Amino acid sequence: MFKTLFGRNPASSSNSPAPDTRLRAIAGSASAGKAATMLIGPAALMQLSHDEARVVVSYMRPHRIAQGTTFIHEGDVDRTDFMLLILDGEVTVETIVVSRSEPITLTVLGPGRLIGEMGLLDGEPRSASCTATTDVHGAILSREALGKLLDDEPRTAAKLMMAISLRIAVRLRESTDKLKMYTQLTQAMQQEINQPTVQ
Amino acid sequence: MFKTLFGRNPASSSNSPAPDTRLRAIAGSASAGKAATMLIGPAALMQLSHDEARVVVSYMRPHRIAQGTTFIHEGDVDRTDFMLLILDGEVTVETIVVSRSEPITLTVLGPGRLIGEMGLLDGEPRSASCTATTDVHGAILSREALGKLLDDEPRTAAKLMMAISLRIAVRLRESTDKLKMYTQLTQAMQQEINQPTVQ
Repeated sequence: MFKTLFGRNPASSSNSPAPDTRLRAIAGSASAGKAATMLIGPAALMQLSHDEARVVVSYMRPHRIAQGTTFIHEGDVDRTDFMLLILDGEVTVETIVVSRSEPITLTVLGPGRLIGEMGLLDGEPRSASCTATTDVHGAILSREALGKLLDDEPRTAAKLMMAISLRIAVRLRESTDKLKMYTQLTQAMQQEINQPTVQ
Repeated sequence: MFKTLFGRNPASSSNSPAPDTRLRAIAGSASAGKAATMLIGPAALMQLSHDEARVVVSYMRPHRIAQGTTFIHEGDVDRTDFMLLILDGEVTVETIVVSRSEPITLTVLGPGRLIGEMGLLDGEPRSASCTATTDVHGAILSREALGKLLDDEPRTAAKLMMAISLRIAVRLRESTDKLKMYTQLTQAMQQEINQPTVQ
């Protein structure tokens, strides 16, 4: 809802304010500025400008999560319609592998990282659980807001999607590197298992 | 170059034809229609329409690769400025792990799959090598053409970027599943290695 947007809130309670109303609303908000800088993120070849990033932020809303809260649950098929940009704090991403009682930490994410951008796009069940390991301050973009941005500012929406793709690509590269490492590790272990025991 | 676009080629040799000239040029081309259908791809929540997909195809060019050709080399930092949509044929994606002489097959991709979309966005070195294991017929989108599409048709560019993000996300989900499997496997192997040998 508009009343939860970054910065000053206009008198109007319209649910779908015009782009310039949105931008005026975030003028002077430090956390909106921080969110814009973080959205620009890692080196893309067709980068969001700071002005475009501010436009995106004007479609987001601030969100606070208390330490210890698990706010995304692995396998969940509901509430997949948002992504979160971490502004402050730390989130642990865990998976529960069937044969084990203890969850396995896949990664720990800090300021500038996105969470849930895959579910935002495909609505598939969440692939991992996310828990705030500190108090977290973030910015949420809902699927509905992304749809509005696409209608109002298609060029900015396109550059946002490039920035999101790039972040998913960075994670895929990291994951591919881990898979290469595991391939080597299991081969080495298999050799050890196959070795005849020295009597 | 425009002369290599799908379908009929206009008399003009302009390097940057207008969007409607591009669309007229692919009218009636069966492979352009196939490319458009494949671009739409897996279930996205904000899907490219068939007309939008045809617009994208009008910015692509057909490309044939002979069986046995390695057309992307792991670690390559040049020629990262395109992605390929496979229309026909099969491509093997391999990685060369340092300690081994034999490459390891990461995946085999067929019609409808994208190759090189990460490099298109970030220009980072290629993370794997790609070899055509059959003759391959594909459609190439260069970074330059993506830039033109963004200028000419920003809304379509935004929906294309969503489709690309979704495909990267699908691969990341697959990769996460493999990592979960490897985590279990190495734990089981570690137990076997740690077991006291029965004498």
